[in-house]
Order: sequence, then structure tokens, then C-alpha cells
Amino acid sequence: MTTLSDIGVAAALNISSAFLFFVAFAILRLQPFNDRVYFPKWYLKGLRTEPVHGRAFVRKFINLDWRAYLGFLNWMPEALRMPEPELIDHAGLDSAVYLRIYLIGLKIFVPIAFLAWTVLVPVNWTSTGLERAQIRNITSSDIDKLSVSNVHSRSERFWGHIVMAYAFTFWTCYILRKEYEKVASMRLEFLATEKRRPDQFTVLVRNIPPDLDESVSELVEHFFLVNHPNHYLTHQVVYDANKLAKLVKKKKKLKNWLVYYQNKLERTSERPEMKTGFLGLWGKKVDAIDYHITEIDKLSKEIDVERENVTNDPKSIMPAAFVSFKTRWAAAVCAQTQQTRNPTLWLTEWAPEPRDVYWKNLPIPYVSLTIRRLIIGVAFFFLTFFFMIPIAFVQTLASLDGIQKAAPWLKPLVTVPFIKSFIQGFLPGIVLKLFLIFLPTILMIMSKFEGFESISSLERRSASRYYLFNFVNIFLGNILTGTAFQQLDSFIHQPANQYPITIGTAIPLKASFFITYIMVDGWASIAAEVLMLRPLIVYHLKNFFLVKTEKDREEAMDPGSIGFNTGEPRIQLYFLLGLVYAAVTPAVLPFIIIFFGLAYVVFRHQIINVYNQEYESGAAFWPDVHFRIILALIVSQIVLMGLLTTKKAASSTPFLIVLPILTIWFHRYCKGRFEPAFVKFPLQEAMMKDTLERAIEPNLNLKGYLQNAYVHPVFKDSMDDDDEEEVFSMELETESVTVPTKRQSRRNTPLPSRISGASSPSV
Amino acid sequence: MTTLSDIGVAAALNISSAFLFFVAFAILRLQPFNDRVYFPKWYLKGLRTEPVHGRAFVRKFINLDWRAYLGFLNWMPEALRMPEPELIDHAGLDSAVYLRIYLIGLKIFVPIAFLAWTVLVPVNWTSTGLERAQIRNITSSDIDKLSVSNVHSRSERFWGHIVMAYAFTFWTCYILRKEYEKVASMRLEFLATEKRRPDQFTVLVRNIPPDLDESVSELVEHFFLVNHPNHYLTHQVVYDANKLAKLVKKKKKLKNWLVYYQNKLERTSERPEMKTGFLGLWGKKVDAIDYHITEIDKLSKEIDVERENVTNDPKSIMPAAFVSFKTRWAAAVCAQTQQTRNPTLWLTEWAPEPRDVYWKNLPIPYVSLTIRRLIIGVAFFFLTFFFMIPIAFVQTLASLDGIQKAAPWLKPLVTVPFIKSFIQGFLPGIVLKLFLIFLPTILMIMSKFEGFESISSLERRSASRYYLFNFVNIFLGNILTGTAFQQLDSFIHQPANQYPITIGTAIPLKASFFITYIMVDGWASIAAEVLMLRPLIVYHLKNFFLVKTEKDREEAMDPGSIGFNTGEPRIQLYFLLGLVYAAVTPAVLPFIIIFFGLAYVVFRHQIINVYNQEYESGAAFWPDVHFRIILALIVSQIVLMGLLTTKKAASSTPFLIVLPILTIWFHRYCKGRFEPAFVKFPLQEAMMKDTLERAIEPNLNLKGYLQNAYVHPVFKDSMDDDDEEEVFSMELETESVTVPTKRQSRRNTPLPSRISGASSPSV
Repeated sequence: MTTLSDIGVAAALNISSAFLFFVAFAILRLQPFNDRVYFPKWYLKGLRTEPVHGRAFVRKFINLDWRAYLGFLNWMPEALRMPEPELIDHAGLDSAVYLRIYLIGLKIFVPIAFLAWTVLVPVNWTSTGLERAQIRNITSSDIDKLSVSNVHSRSERFWGHIVMAYAFTFWTCYILRKEYEKVASMRLEFLATEKRRPDQFTVLVRNIPPDLDESVSELVEHFFLVNHPNHYLTHQVVYDANKLAKLVKKKKKLKNWLVYYQNKLERTSERPEMKTGFLGLWGKKVDAIDYHITEIDKLSKEIDVERENVTNDPKSIMPAAFVSFKTRWAAAVCAQTQQTRNPTLWLTEWAPEPRDVYWKNLPIPYVSLTIRRLIIGVAFFFLTFFFMIPIAFVQTLASLDGIQKAAPWLKPLVTVPFIKSFIQGFLPGIVLKLFLIFLPTILMIMSKFEGFESISSLERRSASRYYLFNFVNIFLGNILTGTAFQQLDSFIHQPANQYPITIGTAIPLKASFFITYIMVDGWASIAAEVLMLRPLIVYHLKNFFLVKTEKDREEAMDPGSIGFNTGEPRIQLYFLLGLVYAAVTPAVLPFIIIFFGLAYVVFRHQIINVYNQEYESGAAFWPDVHFRIILALIVSQIVLMGLLTTKKAASSTPFLIVLPILTIWFHRYCKGRFEPAFVKFPLQEAMMKDTLERAIEPNLNLKGYLQNAYVHPVFKDSMDDDDEEEVFSMELETESVTVPTKRQSRRNTPLPSRISGASSPSV
Repeated sequence: MTTLSDIGVAAALNISSAFLFFVAFAILRLQPFNDRVYFPKWYLKGLRTEPVHGRAFVRKFINLDWRAYLGFLNWMPEALRMPEPELIDHAGLDSAVYLRIYLIGLKIFVPIAFLAWTVLVPVNWTSTGLERAQIRNITSSDIDKLSVSNVHSRSERFWGHIVMAYAFTFWTCYILRKEYEKVASMRLEFLATEKRRPDQFTVLVRNIPPDLDESVSELVEHFFLVNHPNHYLTHQVVYDANKLAKLVKKKKKLKNWLVYYQNKLERTSERPEMKTGFLGLWGKKVDAIDYHITEIDKLSKEIDVERENVTNDPKSIMPAAFVSFKTRWAAAVCAQTQQTRNPTLWLTEWAPEPRDVYWKNLPIPYVSLTIRRLIIGVAFFFLTFFFMIPIAFVQTLASLDGIQKAAPWLKPLVTVPFIKSFIQGFLPGIVLKLFLIFLPTILMIMSKFEGFESISSLERRSASRYYLFNFVNIFLGNILTGTAFQQLDSFIHQPANQYPITIGTAIPLKASFFITYIMVDGWASIAAEVLMLRPLIVYHLKNFFLVKTEKDREEAMDPGSIGFNTGEPRIQLYFLLGLVYAAVTPAVLPFIIIFFGLAYVVFRHQIINVYNQEYESGAAFWPDVHFRIILALIVSQIVLMGLLTTKKAASSTPFLIVLPILTIWFHRYCKGRFEPAFVKFPLQEAMMKDTLERAIEPNLNLKGYLQNAYVHPVFKDSMDDDDEEEVFSMELETESVTVPTKRQSRRNTPLPSRISGASSPSV
């Protein structure tokens, strides 16, 4: 049993480490040579340049102004100063709404904590349940005196907890509803006021059926000319450029090495040598610079050939296309309607932003998608409930006996005391830790396999999987004993009415554990986030070895991004803990409030100064966030029900059954009321924006604007690179191709010649 | 325990009663004076008239041709002769697809029965499990020798059952998929090839927001002129004519009585008298004909005043409208898209056919809808699980003691032996029976309260509720002991893995009960359906007392309709029984096959000759049917799993877990693949039909065609009636009203004057 003083020690430890991180951050961020690590967002926006050149040499790298160090927490108010509209403008709506999740945490838990401490804590504290229990030799900690455990069975005091459960539920729902409404209107506002973007006019069409007579491009054009006449503008087919992308990536890597060796040559004036074999460990020794130049040359040629292949071979055209319309209204219509009889062909949906597209998944056919979903569903089930099995296996391999059996020749090494204790003490823990570190990546790979076509939806899917995993393995896993699989087994063999009781009994006992968890995972690691240790090290390494030009330095920056797929499920865990413990052990709440407050400030700072926005989904993740908080609320109600059942508060417990029903109903109401704003695009808004645009820019060349919006990044990269003319000439070539209808039966397509002459397969 | 001979007796009884019904039907249907009872569909279509007048007087009423009676089952092949396309043309797609449900039953169960009897029955029969059990004094019936009960525990023979379960699942899914595909294409075909219908061009708009400046009609017009320019054609606002409808109904009833008294006068040449009080039981005596004529006059005036009120009072205009477009394409677009930011305003959906509209529910706002749904959800839960409580209460009231307590003055009457035995023996049963008879009506009222806006959706909703009720109270209720509530309670207190075991153990024991149930409910009552006893009696009563003219006789016909809300859940019960018993007691299957065959023939006959089609939803119910068969399949798999667990076939049972997962996946696949065909309308189809129509009828006056399509039936009725000129003059009045924009900010509505002059609020 953890006592209050134990928690005090843990709190002191975590607070001081958080404080240490903040001090280190305050010092490091003021050094000019770290500027690009702590303010990359501003560099990316072009609003900040290298520290002024007029100063002394040393001052370029180290800040010697002692006054700057005094206000070492100044960045906090600074981070809070930027108003929300400016923040949206600066970092996008996704980031701004992401911050609102932390704010919701504060909005929900501050009043709840206040209520709980003024009502429930006195009720619990003045009870004598634990004293009586102690007579029967049951130990308890001081924190338990504040919790519901202290109320003795059959007490009338439980009515207080039930009334509070109602109050908490209604307050949470009230806040959730208000936020949903606010975020929905922010999203629509954002979509309406933002500047012209290609995805407003464009629809992604998937599963285009194969056709013997016509190419994909011709087929798309004819289909939309027939079925959306007066609206269709142009389209871009999707090329299977995965191989090309791989080659380009390889070339970039080689170029990096070339720069490295050239730098080395400059510094040491000695031509560097290298081995050609695996990882440069063996093979023939050659001059590194010459070798890389020839390799890059070879690759460039290969890339040219491959690019030729991709653009000319009809087989490399995928059965998907980005179709653009003349108005937002027409795009909204096309995205929301079904095109053909067979609802698995000509699937239309809003095109994600160009940078949000996950190109690899575009050509997956419908049947394959459903099968993939099944496979991943089963795989995820096993991952969640049985992940301990392979890990335990690896752990036995990584144990002393395992190593001695598998590799007897290592025996002399293993018997060294230091190595022995390392293997025994750390290796098993490291195996588990490694798995948990790689878990988000594994989940991401699963989502990719499942076939989502935008990065934002991949992240959303991974996030919900990660949440489930956390729920089962962190929340339930720490409350109940045994592995997830053992729990599953025991749940199956328990009556349904036992579930809440099992969890309910365990919940109050684990309060002190979760308080420590919140301090370690919530406080200290959030404070570490702001220090950005890894990017700091990587940047300086790169800066030393690779950077030659200003552009290289820019590329050496690694601002990172919010990482919705790992960040959001982590926050949700705190919602879950907060709501579950609100009526049970209110002592947990202050710790959670501190987490939300601290995280809000830190992430606001990071979003303003550091993170680079990878895509803009317009807060499309909000329905998920809302749903998970609702889920946490329902779990908390069920847990309380189970707890009160064990306390034999039979007369009051039935009043709790109403709560989950009302909560589910509330969720359905919100879903119907607000979710469409995140899925559909209202025609009225589209029409208003179209009309406005027509009035302001009557002569806009929309086609030119949209022509190359959805080009595979590999073609774009090379445009930025060095082969600009090349791509352009290719474009001109294809530009002049007309698309005459080859099919007899389609000869009467309305006006094919006039339009198709211009809108033919543009890259 | 039922023995084989018991079942034989029951079968003989039911077969002979079915036979009797068929003979009676064969005789009655050949009598000319019953012609309108047994062939009303043809009269309604105008394809059949009264029997030829040239014959002798007697022959007009009774068929004396003895040869006609010989082939008394001839109607069966006749019913099967009409090909499906003709049937669709004759009775609509709904009816044709409804028949396919019976066909699916045959398609699924004939091969399954064949397989089960060739594989499972020998496996079960040659086992000796029951003989061993008998040594331990466990009785069993002969049928059990054919069932899985006869296989002894831990036998390797269970592999046979598992393989068969796989085979049954795959076969059922194969048939389901094929049928879904077929029905979906039939629906699209039907929608595509059918003649022009108003609902193809029309969208129902609900929740129009109130506006201070403009009337609903003006608001609708401006909204759609702005947001669907070039497409909007006209609209019809919805009047709150519920009071008017009541008055019109009352008038019709009075007219009926007038006719009755006039007939009486003709026959008896004596002016009939009546009392004006309650039900004509007391009050002043008056001349019945004069009284009715003055009453009708009074009502007519009232109706005129009310009609005036409805059409002139802006408060009687509901915030809903039927908006028609120039093309099917535009209507499809509008129905499938979201109109405004607030997804609970300007809700658009396909307009149901005019005769399918449930007018009363059109003006319910969104929030009220969600609350109503919650209330009905809770109410239905209580209805399903606690319906025995009020019934038991009424039963105690209706018992001897109850009556003696409540009404002591009845004591002398109650002590009469005959009345006493009636009260004791019948009353409790009658109370339950009455409840079950009124159940569909209760469910229908619940659906109406829930706010669906078309009769077809009301029926679909009632059907799914009825199915659930049957599942809990007939299927589970007969397998397990105790009331539904007791079962619910015991389920909550059981571990989850006990559910299938509880049901699984009971299933084989109940086989003989369900066989008897199938024969009574399935065979005899289906045969009774064809006899149409109630409509027969009602028709002849009406014919005798009321009918004066040919038109009256037409109104006296009561063809009825399929009654999807009661019929379909009943069929589903047979699917459930068939699938559950397929692998357990294959002896049930032949009885089910006979039911499906018989019902198919009977209902095909009824649909061709009797039932009147009330609406056409284009087989919109198919996804429900599919889903319920899938549900039955999953239940059957779980039951088998439980059964095998009790048989301790531990090595083989885990192989069954895959089946429900695959089945759920299959359902999701089908849902994605086919369901959109029942919810959305593909643009390609709409465009094709538009183009075709434009080519064939370039000068079509679509506006004239749609002008009055969605008039409240009460206005239409009166048009048919006698006030035709009246309504028309009213229309002309409103026709000339123009809708100038009253609002300043909307002055720039594109071309309002040209269009609004013509499309103003048409009734």
C-alpha cells in the first residue's frame, strides 16, 4: 500500500525532474546555435533567419546576455499569448483543435474536482468504514481515507456519490456538446474562409472499372462528361510510381553521402576512401567521392528510364484518378453521391489535400479492402490480447539459460558478473520497452495495410487502435491481475453482472498507483517533450557532418509533428482515469488537472515554435475524440455501479442504470447533429464561396490552377530538383494528345472533341 | 417427451385441416357471388367485371358447372404460371420481392436438408449415445435418435457436424449473396425502366427553419433557387390537414349510414327512425334519413370553413415541403447531399411515393425525433421483457377471485357452473391472445410515434421490432423456462460462455415442440389465409346492408395487403428454426421446407388475385431481410458451439469460432456492396433516364405533371368526391399569387421574378 508520504516523494521527484527539464530548456533555447532546433516552424515559414551577422563570433553560438536567463519560464505566457485565430492561421486548424482537447480536459475536470472536493471528500473523510475494516486487519493507505472505500457498506452516504455521478455526467456532456458545436463551426468557418485550395474542387475517384476500349484517362473523362456535364473540368490519373519513388529516395541518400565526403575532403584535404560492400564494412576500397558521383549518375539514368516507363506504360496507370470540377458545388455533389449501379465501382470521396494523400494505397480494389479489414481486425485482436506471448518467448531467449542454450560459445562472456546482471536485470524489460516503442509503428503499418488513402485517416485509425490497446493493457491491465489474455479468459467465464463488480472492487485500490503513473508519464515526460533531446542531438550531428549550404541546414532540421496517432490516445487515458476516479477517489483529480494544464502550455509552445504541419484535415479527428470521452464516461458509470454493488448499496445503485442509457443517447444525438459537418460538405457553403469567387475573380484560370495539383510527389520532387525542363517537356508532349472516343457506342458523348482536347492526361 | 406417433397425429390433424381449408376455398372461389372477395385485385385494375349478364339468374350467384369443381387444386399451378416480370408489372416490385423471401427459404433449405439427411442423419442414427443414457434412466423420444443428442460425448463423430456447419454457412451465404445481388439489380432495373413517377423528381425537405421575413413557401423557393440553380422546378408546401382529414372521414361515415337507411327505406317502404345519443342507444328519436342529410350538410360547411382555414392560415403550413427538380439527376443530387451547415435543418431525402407518405409525421423537428427514439427504445425494451407483468395483472383481475373482489354484486352470476368454468379456463388465455393480436398494432403505433415519414418505413420498423419480440418470446421463450424477464435476469447472472451452453442444451429437446408449432402456425394457418374468411363475411354483410351502386360494391371489397410488418417476421422465425436445427435435428427441416413451399404458392396466388398494393417502396426492405437471416445464421452457429461444449467435444469446438467471424465479415461485405442500391440512387442511372426522356419527349410539361402530385390526400379525396370545382377554383386563386422577395438582403437572388411567378405555392 502506498502511503501519502510515498506519493509525496514521487511527486517531489517528478516535479524536480520536470523543473530540471524546464531549466535546461530555458538555457538551451536561448543559444543561437540551437535556434533551428527550437524554432524550426518559423524558419519553415521564412519568418526567421539565422541570428544577425553583425555580432561577435562567439555570440553567434552562445547567448552571453545574462538577463535573458532570468525569466526562464517566460516562454509559457508567450506560448499562451497568441490568440486562437492567429494560431489557426499560423499552424492550421488541426493543431488549434488538437490543443482544444487539453482545454476540454481543464474545462471538464476543474469544476468536477471542485465539486468532488467540496462534497465527496468530506463525505468520505468523515466516514469510518476503513477504521472498522482495520479492526478486521485490512490495511489501507491514507489516500483511501479520501476515497469511497472509507464509506462503510449499506451507508446512506452513497446517495451523495450517485448525485455526484449525475452531476459529473451532465457537466461532461454539456462541455462535450458545446465543444462539438464549436469545433464543427470552426471547421466549417475554416473551410469557408480559407483560401482557394485544390482539394475544394477535387474528388478522388477509386475503383475505376477496367475497360477494353479506352484507357483509364479517357474512361474517366467520358464518364464525368456524361454524368456531370457542365461541371466537369479536368482530371489527373494516378501513376504507380512506387519504384520511381524508391529510386529517387536512394539518389537523395547517395547525394547526402557525397556531401559528407566532400566536406571531409575540405576539412582534411585528404581524399576519403570507402569499401563498397555491405554497410561499408568490407569489399573493394575505392575513392568515395568518385564512387558516389558515378553511382549518382547511374541512378539518374535509371530514374529517367523508370520515369519514361511510368508515364508511357499504360500498365503503370492505376484505376484511380483525381477529378476536378468547375465549382466547389459540383465537387461537393460528386463527393456525396453514388455514381453507378455497382456501389463498389467509381467510388467518389473528397480528395484529401495533395500533401495528405497516401499514394501507395490508391489502387486497392473494394473486395481486397474488405478482406484486408478482416485480416487486420483479427490481427489486432491477437496483438492486443496475446502480445505477451511472443514477448515472453523473446524474454526467455534473452535470459541467461536461453542464451547459453542457443549460443554455447557465448558462455564465457555470459558468466562475467556485470554482463550477467545486465542480462538478468535489464534485457527482459528492454524487450518489452522496445515492443511498446515500436507499437505505434506496428499499428501504423497495420493501418497502411488496411488501405486508407490519406495520411490523416491512417493516423486516425492508428489512434483508435492505440487507444484500445492502452485501454486493455494499461487501464484494465493495471487494475486486474494477469495478462490481457488471462483477463479475457476470466471475463468469458464470469457472469456479465460480475464485470463491473470485478473492476469496481479493484479501482479504489489502484488510485495511488495511477497517481504515480500520471506524475511519471504525464508530468515528467511532458516536460521532457519541450526539451526535444533527440532532434537536438540529431541536428547537431547533421550540422557537423553534412551541412554545407543554407539549404542543407534547412533539411537538417527535424521539427516533427504533433503525432496524432500516439498523442491523442495518451490524452484519452487521462480522461478515462479522471472520469473513473472522479466519484471514487477525488484525490486523483488535481494530478490530472496539472497534467492537462502543463501539457496545454507545452504543446501550445511546441505547435507555435516547433512542429511542422504535415497535412490539414480540418479537424476531421474530432468525432473520434468525442466518442472516446463518451466511452470513458460510460466506463466510469459502469465501474461506479459495480463498486456500489459490492458496497451493498442496493437501494441506490439502480438509479445509476439510467446514466449509461442517457449517455449513449446523448452520443447518438451529437452524432446526428454534428458529425455530418466532418464528413460532408454543405452545398449552401460551397455555393456561397463559388458565388463570391466568381464575383471577385471572374477571369480565374481554374484549370491552370488545378492542372498539376495532384501530381505524385516524386514528379514534384524532381521538378524542384534538377530535371525541371525534362518534366515540363514531358508534360507538353502529353498535353497535345487528344482523346478521341474509340468506342462505337459512345460516339454521342456530348461535345467530346472540344473539351477533351485540353483536359487530357496531364501527368 | 413427444414420440414419433404424437407428431404423426399432429401432422395428420394439421394436414387434414389444411386440406379442408383448400377444399372450402376451391368451392367458394368458384361461386360468382364471391368473385369480388377472391379476385379483388383484378377488379381494382379494371380487368374483371361482374360475371356475364346473359346467364340464368341462379347462375349469377352459384356455379353449377360440376366440372369446375374437379380440379380443386388448379389454382396452385395457375398461381405459379405468371412469370416474374409480369408479376412485377401486375403487383409491383415489393410484392414480387416479398415472394422471393419464400423462394430463398426453399433455395437454402432444400440442399441443406438433402445434405443433412444423407450425412448427419446416418451419423446420428448409428450412434448409441441415447441407449447408454437410457441405462441411466434418461428418457428420450424417437426423434432424438435422429438428432445430435444420440451421439455420445467426446465422440469423433462431431467432426461431421462441424464440417456440415461450415457447409451450411457457406451455402446460406452463397444464396444470400446471389439473392442480394439479384434483388439490388431488380430494384435498379425497376427504378430505371418504370414509367415517369413524381417521386423520381421530388425530394422531401424537412425541418425548414422558421423565418421572420418570409413564408415557408417563399423560403423554400429562394433557398433552392440559390443553392440548386438551373435545377429547381417547383415545390409544394405541406399543410397541417389532420383536422380536415378527420372531418372528411366523419362525413364519409355519415354518408354510409345515409345509404344504409335509404336502402332500408326502399326495402321496407317505412321511414327508418334512430336515436341521436351514444351509439344510437338513447336520446331523441328522429327520422334517420332527414337527420343524416342535415348532419352531412352541416359537416360540408364545416369542411369548407376548415379548408379555407388550412389554405389561408400561415400557421397551418408545416415546416416541410416537397421540392421538385427539372431532372432526376438534380433530385438524386439534392437527396444525397447535405444542404446547410446545420445538419438538422433543411434535411433532404427521397420523397416517398405520394400514396406512401405518412402525412402526420412530416413536421416533427430533429431534437424531438431523437428524444422520441429514446422513449420508444426504452418502451420497447419493457414491452419485450416485461409484457407478462400487466398481462398477469389483468389475468388475476379476470380470475374468479379477482371478479368477486372487484364486483361483489356479480357473485351470483359467477357461481353459475358454465360461466365459472369459462372464466377459469378461457379468460386468462384470451387476455394473452388478445395482447398478441394487438401487438402488431401496438408496434405500429410505437413506430408512428417515433416519427417515420412514410408508411413503408413504418412497416419496416415495426417488422424489426416484431422480429425481436418473436425472437425473445417465441424462440428463446420456448427453449428456456420462465418469462422473458426471468431469462434476462438469469442471463445477467451467468458467465458469458454459459449462454450458448444454456441454449445449446435445451435446443435438441425442443425439436418436437417446434415441429408441432410449424405445423399449426405454418401449415394450417397459411392454408386458412387463402380462404379469407373475415373479408368474405364482411363483404357479404356490407353487400347486403350498404351496397346500392356499382361504386359502393367496389368500396365494399377489402382486398387487404401483404402486411409486411407481421408477415416478414413470421417467415424469419422459420429461417431461424431451420438454420438452428439444420445441424442439430435435421428432422425439423422437411417440415420447414413444406411451409416455405406452401406459403410460396398461397401468397403468390393472393398477390396475383387478392392483395391490393398500398405503396411501392422498390423492395427497400431487402437489407432488413438479409440482415435477419444473417442473424439467424450466427445464432445457429453459437448454439451449435454451446451444444458441442456440453458434449465435451473440446478438440473440435474451437473450429466453430471462425464461423461467426466470417459470417459477420460477410454481412459487412454485403452491406457495403449492395446496401447503397437501396438507400441512394446512382447518378449514372438518373442521367441515362433523363437523357432518354429528353430525346423521346422534348416538349414534356414536367411542371404541370408535378404540380399537384404531393397534395394531401384529403384535398385529393374531396376532388374525387363532389367539390371538384371548389378545389379547382381555390387552386386558380393561389396560382396567380406571385412571391416577391420581401427581404432586403436576398434581392440578388438569381432571376427570382421569372421563375417565382409560376411556381408559387400550389396547394
